[in-house]
Amino acid sequence: MTLPTLTDMMSTDTVAAIATPPGTAGLAVLRLSGSRSIEIASAVFTGADLRAVHSHTVHYGKVRDSHGEVLDEVLVSVFRAPQSYTGEDSVEISCHGGTLLARSVLQALLDAGARHAEAGEFTRRAFMNGRMDLTQAEAVADLIHAQSQQARRASLRQLEGSLSEYIGAIREQLLHIASMLELSLDFVEEDVAFLSNEELHAVISDAMVRIRSALESYGSGRLLRDGIRVVLLGCPNVGKSSLLNALLGADRAIVTDVPGTTRDFIEEALLLRGVLFRMVDTAGLRDTGDTVELHGIARTHAMLREADVVCLLSEAAGGEDMLETACTLAELGKDDARLIPLFTKSDLVPAAERDRLRGIGLPVSVLESGGLDLLRERLFEVARSLHDTTEAGSVLVTNARHADCLRLSLAALQRADDALQGGATEEFVSVEVRDATTVLGEIIGEVTSDDVLNGIFSRFCIGK
Amino acid sequence: MTLPTLTDMMSTDTVAAIATPPGTAGLAVLRLSGSRSIEIASAVFTGADLRAVHSHTVHYGKVRDSHGEVLDEVLVSVFRAPQSYTGEDSVEISCHGGTLLARSVLQALLDAGARHAEAGEFTRRAFMNGRMDLTQAEAVADLIHAQSQQARRASLRQLEGSLSEYIGAIREQLLHIASMLELSLDFVEEDVAFLSNEELHAVISDAMVRIRSALESYGSGRLLRDGIRVVLLGCPNVGKSSLLNALLGADRAIVTDVPGTTRDFIEEALLLRGVLFRMVDTAGLRDTGDTVELHGIARTHAMLREADVVCLLSEAAGGEDMLETACTLAELGKDDARLIPLFTKSDLVPAAERDRLRGIGLPVSVLESGGLDLLRERLFEVARSLHDTTEAGSVLVTNARHADCLRLSLAALQRADDALQGGATEEFVSVEVRDATTVLGEIIGEVTSDDVLNGIFSRFCIGK
Repeated sequence: MTLPTLTDMMSTDTVAAIATPPGTAGLAVLRLSGSRSIEIASAVFTGADLRAVHSHTVHYGKVRDSHGEVLDEVLVSVFRAPQSYTGEDSVEISCHGGTLLARSVLQALLDAGARHAEAGEFTRRAFMNGRMDLTQAEAVADLIHAQSQQARRASLRQLEGSLSEYIGAIREQLLHIASMLELSLDFVEEDVAFLSNEELHAVISDAMVRIRSALESYGSGRLLRDGIRVVLLGCPNVGKSSLLNALLGADRAIVTDVPGTTRDFIEEALLLRGVLFRMVDTAGLRDTGDTVELHGIARTHAMLREADVVCLLSEAAGGEDMLETACTLAELGKDDARLIPLFTKSDLVPAAERDRLRGIGLPVSVLESGGLDLLRERLFEVARSLHDTTEAGSVLVTNARHADCLRLSLAALQRADDALQGGATEEFVSVEVRDATTVLGEIIGEVTSDDVLNGIFSRFCIGK
Repeated sequence: MTLPTLTDMMSTDTVAAIATPPGTAGLAVLRLSGSRSIEIASAVFTGADLRAVHSHTVHYGKVRDSHGEVLDEVLVSVFRAPQSYTGEDSVEISCHGGTLLARSVLQALLDAGARHAEAGEFTRRAFMNGRMDLTQAEAVADLIHAQSQQARRASLRQLEGSLSEYIGAIREQLLHIASMLELSLDFVEEDVAFLSNEELHAVISDAMVRIRSALESYGSGRLLRDGIRVVLLGCPNVGKSSLLNALLGADRAIVTDVPGTTRDFIEEALLLRGVLFRMVDTAGLRDTGDTVELHGIARTHAMLREADVVCLLSEAAGGEDMLETACTLAELGKDDARLIPLFTKSDLVPAAERDRLRGIGLPVSVLESGGLDLLRERLFEVARSLHDTTEAGSVLVTNARHADCLRLSLAALQRADDALQGGATEEFVSVEVRDATTVLGEIIGEVTSDDVLNGIFSRFCIGK
């Protein structure tokens, strides 16, 4: 692992960026951060003397370009170190909306000596200046990208430090026994043991239990963050696109009565009571000429493997072939609990037939709301199982990087415990425990490398 | 004209809106304005007691929904009446970016008693509270929508009050003579004249000269604001789309070698040194079967009438028919100064032929930059003639509403002057002068109706 090069990362220059989305709106906000923020803002601003004002105050005035031409009337907020988002002197400039204006003001700031900020640089500076740890910095990006209330809630809890606390506590405990083990090494000649093997084993086991618990939350956490993937599967013209549209309440997919209209696959976000579902309309099962052949379509298979829920569609009027298809799916190894058989166009069959179909699956019709409501309810039931894990107090891992680190720490602790049971020296056990603390430290950013940081902050948008 | 119903328009409720564009970015900003702003913000905010803080200060804290759940960590700025954009108590909430988050915070504000703001309502309140006049309010919308530096500059000058001052000065002068005329009426029995006919005529003439000067600027002003409309005209496959793409530097138009690819017309913005051009690629001149027939195509004719510049394209290799087409254009009444004959695909003809063509027009090739650069220069020359009007000090009318009012006031003054010359009574002259002051008052909003205001503010986005 590359050692952290803090000095490389802690740029001493002052950065600027537009922090609001492009587009026409009432306001656009630009940010400056770094030791020269207030000086650079003063250079372009006519109004109050920003160098003399208090932190956390707002000032009306005009921004001028390097030729002295007024660009806009603005409000400028001044934040003095360390009481700012980044922990550095910072300035926010709120100008009239519109991309051209905001860009002009940004150019004026660059002309006055600011550097255009890299993606995530403001948050990276906040991390480097100790304003937040790495899980909190990652939560900022998750919060911004949150597509459901559940995802927002999970990110906010992480931003508030819940994961850091959980991991930090385990790490402290392990650092303590590592120190004890290393201390024993200094006194090895005297044969003094600071901790008994039983005590060591108890601490390591306890840490492993807690790490496993965190890891187990990752399955739900990932779904919360990225959404529950629902694949709609069925023969051409069975009504997948129509169903998708009915659920979405908008004409997103192109619906026609020509089989094979859906060329590739369409993924749409569906929010049900704050839970995000990703509805995937498959390419249909017809690529091999005009015959329906489940086994032949690699893409659909790949999608099934990634699916959290599969809705298997067949027409209510021709319901028998459903059973056959369901068998084929079972061969594909799908979990039945996550399979929802749907009988489409149920308005076309008599009530008695619909009752019969209800024994096997769910009759739905885009012309009637009853079946659609039941389908929404079924989808929501799948999500309900995730609810517990978002309760306050329990840990929730949503990030693949965190899960990877947890797995590595678990493996190191397992080796430590094995070594302990096998009568290995304190030195060997200590090395494994140290390894575990190092990877746990990577989660919260106490131990980290430029590569890891670059990977994390490149996910951010510019201006954050 | 409907009388202004100020009380109707001055809503007493407190409004809220998201003021930044939708989309994923570092920040989103919400605005509250109205007497209950600080109370409503306090209801959702945990941090400082906003009711106790000074105006123009920023406070870190958390926003909660009506169930007490934390939605986001935010910065809240407080602005106390009358020192705010709207002139009312106002609050700005800066939350993490992302549409979902901003909407959640907005919902919390609505739940706490705010009403969702109408389009332009913040600026309308600023106008109603005397924070700006109507030309300044209109300039806010123009500034946000500005697509070129020139347009931004013109809007900003209007926002700073240049047009209001110009119109206001004329109006004051006319109000003065109207008062004098009305005073004379009170003393009509005594046959006292407060102003001689010569004096009256001089003032009215002076006002008319200044109104005409403002009206004359409208031609340029409109072009500055909306862009200079350049129509590319020529036979199918002559290379209009390719030329457009080369000028834009991007593949916006679909270019193929099949004549008639451009189905309708494509309008693209082109910025040359801060000047906005609207490049219009016509449908080609082929609707009437396969024969080229200029007179037959109504849409192209309509576009020609609206064109500020016409680029007439023909192939360099077949340059002679250009002259014929140019004659046809002349019949259509186009100004030669605004006609730029272009010989496309000039790389296909020998240098000697290119030299000959330069006597008639501009040889261009998308494969060579020389001709394109000359074309850009020619377009910029057209724009240069507008430059003077954007000099500080001179008036610039960019708005059709203002131009209409100016025309009406001019007509009223003309009638007043005619009456004066024809020996009409002071009463008659006075009515016409009053009429002129009324329409001038409409420009700056001293006299206005709900219909006018609704028309103006419906152009705004929500949150401004």
